[in-house]
Amino acid sequence: MANIKPVTWTETPSSEYPLVERSLHPTGSTVAIGDVAFGGDSFVMIAGPCAVESRDQMDASAALVTKFGARVLRGGAFKPRTSPYSFQGMGFEGIELLQGASRKHGMPFVTEVMSISQVKELEPHVDAFQVGTRNMHNFDLLRALGETGKPVLLKRGFGATLREWLLACEYVAQGGNSQIILCERGIRSFSPETRFTLDLAGAIWAKQETHLPVIVDPSHATGLPQLVGPLVAAAAAAGLDGAMIELHPTPDDALSDGDQALTPQQFEVLMTTLRPIVEAVGRKL
Amino acid sequence: MANIKPVTWTETPSSEYPLVERSLHPTGSTVAIGDVAFGGDSFVMIAGPCAVESRDQMDASAALVTKFGARVLRGGAFKPRTSPYSFQGMGFEGIELLQGASRKHGMPFVTEVMSISQVKELEPHVDAFQVGTRNMHNFDLLRALGETGKPVLLKRGFGATLREWLLACEYVAQGGNSQIILCERGIRSFSPETRFTLDLAGAIWAKQETHLPVIVDPSHATGLPQLVGPLVAAAAAAGLDGAMIELHPTPDDALSDGDQALTPQQFEVLMTTLRPIVEAVGRKL
Amino acid sequence: MANIKPVTWTETPSSEYPLVERSLHPTGSTVAIGDVAFGGDSFVMIAGPCAVESRDQMDASAALVTKFGARVLRGGAFKPRTSPYSFQGMGFEGIELLQGASRKHGMPFVTEVMSISQVKELEPHVDAFQVGTRNMHNFDLLRALGETGKPVLLKRGFGATLREWLLACEYVAQGGNSQIILCERGIRSFSPETRFTLDLAGAIWAKQETHLPVIVDPSHATGLPQLVGPLVAAAAAAGLDGAMIELHPTPDDALSDGDQALTPQQFEVLMTTLRPIVEAVGRKL
Amino acid sequence: MANIKPVTWTETPSSEYPLVERSLHPTGSTVAIGDVAFGGDSFVMIAGPCAVESRDQMDASAALVTKFGARVLRGGAFKPRTSPYSFQGMGFEGIELLQGASRKHGMPFVTEVMSISQVKELEPHVDAFQVGTRNMHNFDLLRALGETGKPVLLKRGFGATLREWLLACEYVAQGGNSQIILCERGIRSFSPETRFTLDLAGAIWAKQETHLPVIVDPSHATGLPQLVGPLVAAAAAAGLDGAMIELHPTPDDALSDGDQALTPQQFEVLMTTLRPIVEAVGRKL
Repeated sequence: MANIKPVTWTETPSSEYPLVERSLHPTGSTVAIGDVAFGGDSFVMIAGPCAVESRDQMDASAALVTKFGARVLRGGAFKPRTSPYSFQGMGFEGIELLQGASRKHGMPFVTEVMSISQVKELEPHVDAFQVGTRNMHNFDLLRALGETGKPVLLKRGFGATLREWLLACEYVAQGGNSQIILCERGIRSFSPETRFTLDLAGAIWAKQETHLPVIVDPSHATGLPQLVGPLVAAAAAAGLDGAMIELHPTPDDALSDGDQALTPQQFEVLMTTLRPIVEAVGRKL
Repeated sequence: MANIKPVTWTETPSSEYPLVERSLHPTGSTVAIGDVAFGGDSFVMIAGPCAVESRDQMDASAALVTKFGARVLRGGAFKPRTSPYSFQGMGFEGIELLQGASRKHGMPFVTEVMSISQVKELEPHVDAFQVGTRNMHNFDLLRALGETGKPVLLKRGFGATLREWLLACEYVAQGGNSQIILCERGIRSFSPETRFTLDLAGAIWAKQETHLPVIVDPSHATGLPQLVGPLVAAAAAAGLDGAMIELHPTPDDALSDGDQALTPQQFEVLMTTLRPIVEAVGRKL
Repeated sequence: MANIKPVTWTETPSSEYPLVERSLHPTGSTVAIGDVAFGGDSFVMIAGPCAVESRDQMDASAALVTKFGARVLRGGAFKPRTSPYSFQGMGFEGIELLQGASRKHGMPFVTEVMSISQVKELEPHVDAFQVGTRNMHNFDLLRALGETGKPVLLKRGFGATLREWLLACEYVAQGGNSQIILCERGIRSFSPETRFTLDLAGAIWAKQETHLPVIVDPSHATGLPQLVGPLVAAAAAAGLDGAMIELHPTPDDALSDGDQALTPQQFEVLMTTLRPIVEAVGRKL
Repeated sequence: MANIKPVTWTETPSSEYPLVERSLHPTGSTVAIGDVAFGGDSFVMIAGPCAVESRDQMDASAALVTKFGARVLRGGAFKPRTSPYSFQGMGFEGIELLQGASRKHGMPFVTEVMSISQVKELEPHVDAFQVGTRNMHNFDLLRALGETGKPVLLKRGFGATLREWLLACEYVAQGGNSQIILCERGIRSFSPETRFTLDLAGAIWAKQETHLPVIVDPSHATGLPQLVGPLVAAAAAAGLDGAMIELHPTPDDALSDGDQALTPQQFEVLMTTLRPIVEAVGRKL
């Protein structure tokens, strides 16, 4: 058992969130994915399909994303699925397709990392690591990401309190990496009409308590495309820093979560409706 | 038992919400409290203290409400309190104070009705009945309100699904009164940092499923004044029809829920910040 | 508004639950429905159909209930249904059928009261009032029941905290009636496999905090007949005072909640399995 | 990225839980930790401290565990803590102390594994791997454990549905290891009086749906020692296969979760009370 490192027991610091609390940067910090800054004067849209499926799909997706004004591409190559019998993602090959589409269309991308064994391999290839809702409490993964130089988009666990979410940031930040973007993606509640319950108040609370940028993911939160546009507008009006949504060139063909993806037409309407609201709060898209 | 009326068993109609479903009024219906229309081209603010406490407090509150552009006064005279040992409201006398402040400042008011025994007495005096979260499932009260001619502001039960909320509307509408304004006020969830979890997505869903106006109450939903302004802005951007908030001329003196009431200064900031967002979605305050 | 009584504002007492807290009766109090005592040396089974449907159905139900050793009959005549378009119960006529079956088979019965307008009419006819989960927060109803001389079976609101449940008891007890039996019937949670989540730990907590008898209703809590027997056994082993279950002579014909009712055969197995467990904790059925 | 293995996409099988569903072993399978079988004719108690703290503490704990009739020792060496500033466990050294106490007192032990990097190192030393609630969705860890030859005690995620819990078993079983014991340890709900809400009905449901043994952990579920005994008794009466509880020779000195640990006296009462209930359901301790 020689290579299991002894665990360091740090003394409780004076503050509960000593590395991410708001008082460290009272006006907020910015975190950049590639050349796109979160937490500054832009409300940033991240868009793309749930899962990487093919070169054509990623190329068409990236073209749509950039055409209507979103600035970061998303797509899953490693998919944490509830059932081992569901599509698990394209893995390595998917990362290459993401990278290709990203470079061709001149926009950075973010993709999920599922395991510490992937961190070192993925680091040179990705613009940002996404930690999914099921891994928010995977403390070893959080620590491993804290030792990288790439930003971390940290989704809230669907069963996690707000305090637990901020403490997950501390696990990342302890390694020296404070480039963290928080993403509220819906919590479990008793109401079955939406897949999860988007805790917008919780996202605002997190923004007020920490210096980190905070965004929302209304696609996963609700599972209902018709709610995505109004919720993105709401997040912009509330002063949050961006939104992450799912779109698909042809949702009916999607291998994963096609029901919740926006069509190109819905995405265009969303972006058109969003612009004046973003401007009303003194920011730009 | 002669005066217990036999219960009528209506056959299941073809639609689940035959009286309030969206298809009846595809562009939405408007409901007026006094001369203030909800569901039209205005985003309407309802404001006032949690509880009516004195003539001076109501006069000062109404002056603040109207000064900064809110259009409907709120205040509780009958307070449904978790503990029988908490302040239960001023009752009859509180209604008189509300009515006085309302008339003096030229704005309608809404107040909570707790019991069918109060309905007939209150009807001539109030501009609208509020059904509180604990009474959303009080079907006899809903039926009694359906037989009045005054609008009903129906808060969602904090343990109620969206479907149950819409079916509560059906109970009211069955009596012939479809002047219903829905109010999302937070549901119970596991996260303790906010008092309840404001289900903004659920409010938008209700707006899409019914023809009724839908508003939010972020004061009760969160219990945290610093979250109220951003959430009102969010509701406006999302296309909802208004918000109901708590303010108090001097929150530290409040007999009920003082912690969550906005100060006059906070209320002014809220209204100033809100205006450009309301205009960005093509409406007015 | 003359007959709206001024609300009394009682000063906060030294204890949170001054009338029901355990310290008043450290060994627990007993509450009798008819001649059947809850909270003493028996674990009491209440059984019957969800809704009263006909004289034959009630006669057959009461015969089953008593044959296998349950001691109190249940049945709903006034049904609080989520939709106004569902069967609402037989009303007055149902009470007469309940009373008839109860007298014929020599066992007391409990039935739900939905509204203060029914309290005075029902009081002479019923052996106990049941307050349903949707009315736990109907404070005027609780107060009205506190002024009667009949025991109150108070179900926990499916969205109510334990503290709120105990404070609902205080509303009843304030009127002078401390004959209260608490019934845990499942709370709302995110897990869809069972209808609600039976909070057995919460029921035990309530038993430890108050001097009142506490029972469970696993039929409504789970909606799954195959879970009812094990949960009744669990309640008995945990030291609770009884259980309330649904059975139907012919569940497939039930007008309400037939899916969750036990068949006569399932009920017989339940009672047979239960007996040694009840004896193992030093009680009798 | 050469050593990131391509992900295999298995076709959806005919059943949802093809490896753990009940129909495979209609009378249930047994899983042994050391020489102690779960799922057979014994109701098995696992007991010990939350965290391994010292040789003396483990020796005293193991002596207590065996003295009063529990058969498996527990203790955490790697502790997944919400805050990185809390005690993280003794790591490697803790495993040695566990193993020492286990061998000295002649009983097997189970301990938590937090990360795939620990699996191979721990395998020769532990009698069973525990997967904690925060790792139930750590699919790579589940797969890695599926390739070992040691039993896996799989706790339910506190935000996981029952279906998700059973699918987590499929992840383990896919690797060839079906020695899985399910442990319900409380889910998140809105009620703050207990730390979590023990879903006993869910545990029974899992027992009926799968062929695997199912136990409960009332110490973590409630955080209240006075609820632990009644809930263990409830689990036994409901036909579940065991319980896992926390005890500490001197709870006031515990480094982690001391508030919820039973004292030696409380543990003795629990075991004495439990025995007749276990016998009443035809099993032994």
